[in-house]
Amino acid sequence: LQDHARVTIVHAEQVVGMDDPPAVALKSKRQSSMRHAFQAVADGKADAAVSAGNTGALMAISRYVLKTLEGIDRPAIATAIPNRQGGSTLMLDLGANVDCGPEHLFQFAVMGAALVAVTQDKPAPSVALLNVGEEAIKGNEVVKQAADLLRASGLRFTGNVEGNDVYKGGTDVVVCDGFVGNVALKSSEGVAQMLGAFLREEFKRNWATKLAAVVASPVLRAFAARVDPRRYNGAVLLGLRGVVVKSHGSADAYAFRHALERAADAAEHGLIARISGALQAG
Amino acid sequence: LQDHARVTIVHAEQVVGMDDPPAVALKSKRQSSMRHAFQAVADGKADAAVSAGNTGALMAISRYVLKTLEGIDRPAIATAIPNRQGGSTLMLDLGANVDCGPEHLFQFAVMGAALVAVTQDKPAPSVALLNVGEEAIKGNEVVKQAADLLRASGLRFTGNVEGNDVYKGGTDVVVCDGFVGNVALKSSEGVAQMLGAFLREEFKRNWATKLAAVVASPVLRAFAARVDPRRYNGAVLLGLRGVVVKSHGSADAYAFRHALERAADAAEHGLIARISGALQAG
Repeated sequence: LQDHARVTIVHAEQVVGMDDPPAVALKSKRQSSMRHAFQAVADGKADAAVSAGNTGALMAISRYVLKTLEGIDRPAIATAIPNRQGGSTLMLDLGANVDCGPEHLFQFAVMGAALVAVTQDKPAPSVALLNVGEEAIKGNEVVKQAADLLRASGLRFTGNVEGNDVYKGGTDVVVCDGFVGNVALKSSEGVAQMLGAFLREEFKRNWATKLAAVVASPVLRAFAARVDPRRYNGAVLLGLRGVVVKSHGSADAYAFRHALERAADAAEHGLIARISGALQAG
Repeated sequence: LQDHARVTIVHAEQVVGMDDPPAVALKSKRQSSMRHAFQAVADGKADAAVSAGNTGALMAISRYVLKTLEGIDRPAIATAIPNRQGGSTLMLDLGANVDCGPEHLFQFAVMGAALVAVTQDKPAPSVALLNVGEEAIKGNEVVKQAADLLRASGLRFTGNVEGNDVYKGGTDVVVCDGFVGNVALKSSEGVAQMLGAFLREEFKRNWATKLAAVVASPVLRAFAARVDPRRYNGAVLLGLRGVVVKSHGSADAYAFRHALERAADAAEHGLIARISGALQAG
């Protein structure tokens, strides 16, 4: 890295551990690499920060160092989810906020729409609420009140979608509270891993199935590449006065590259200014 | 069916439509087949009722006709979800209750444990709360308080699990509110359908991949049979004074058979008495 002209190495004496409680990381790890990264963004020395570290610490430190944008109570975690149409659906929040009010869901919608607007060059992305049914009368109280806020806003609110609709595609931004989003995303990962394991087991069952696996291997490789979760690595922390991207903790170089690209993309397209503008416009 | 000695046909003048609001179905469809089915259970003429009809109407009518068990505020929907270990995880609630308090999650745990105890012959099933992290400090307020209730109970409470853990297996009963459970289940269905569609597309790409599909077809058929969602058809409505099973609306004969088997299994093993006993034991 030292030979690379555009890389500057900043020395950090401390490391935030994966088990450090957020408050401890915030108070007693002031010389950590994570803290230095956010400080560089705050100081204008870097345009974005990317970390594969402890999520709780990352949220606490980034929020302390970078501060939230005006009109945002708490940052949200947003990620692109592949859909059947070959595109992606931006979903948020994925776990930063486990107790949300209607106004929080509304803020997520504004920020998510701004992210899609700048990174996918869509001036008016469609926004939907994740719900248990498509009808307006369905859902819990928080979602119903959030729908009222969204209908009264300038966003292109298209109503409710259900869990399976996220993967069907057709909506640019799907909004939910962090508890629901986290469970939905992890359940999806769980079922995908189970199906992958079952498919491998069936191909390893005996000599005949192993032979079939050899014949089918180009197809299976193409399938694996198409659904490779590493291509969707990099969740954006929205609501801060700087671009922060969270990589999966187990990311390899290929996955981390995608997180870096996501951060560069958001920074290059002026994400923060766009969100600020959208918040001020109401 | 008329030639079958054990089948009795009860004539019903009305049908509950898939779009009938629950209140309308309850008040103006008193001669519907759904109403008659629950009435037969209430009268002791049938040991269980199975329906593939309108879920909202089914919940409203079954609750009105059969009444809830003492100690149960609202019934919950429970279903068996396949896991990697080759077994299944019972998950509830899946959509009957979108605004739950801690005491509701506790009641779901008691009922779910009773269902697994009788149908899988496990005297002390393990029970976990669906959460955004395994640590006790994680989660929203409702889940934290439900954990306190579960720790103080006689149930084998094993703590928190995350969305992916449902598919890993290792826990017999996973409890969540109906909003979260519905979104998790439908997200899982959505990702499974997307992966299936992508796999089919890759095998249909050109003549070489189509040839590979022919060679691999026994393996692909075995895989499809293994993950066939029809085998898991039949969600149990828990908390009523009678066995009620909800089949998927689009179920074919093979899927519907599984829903019937689930109902017979619950009735034969004295599910209602078991739940009542568990509720009285606290």
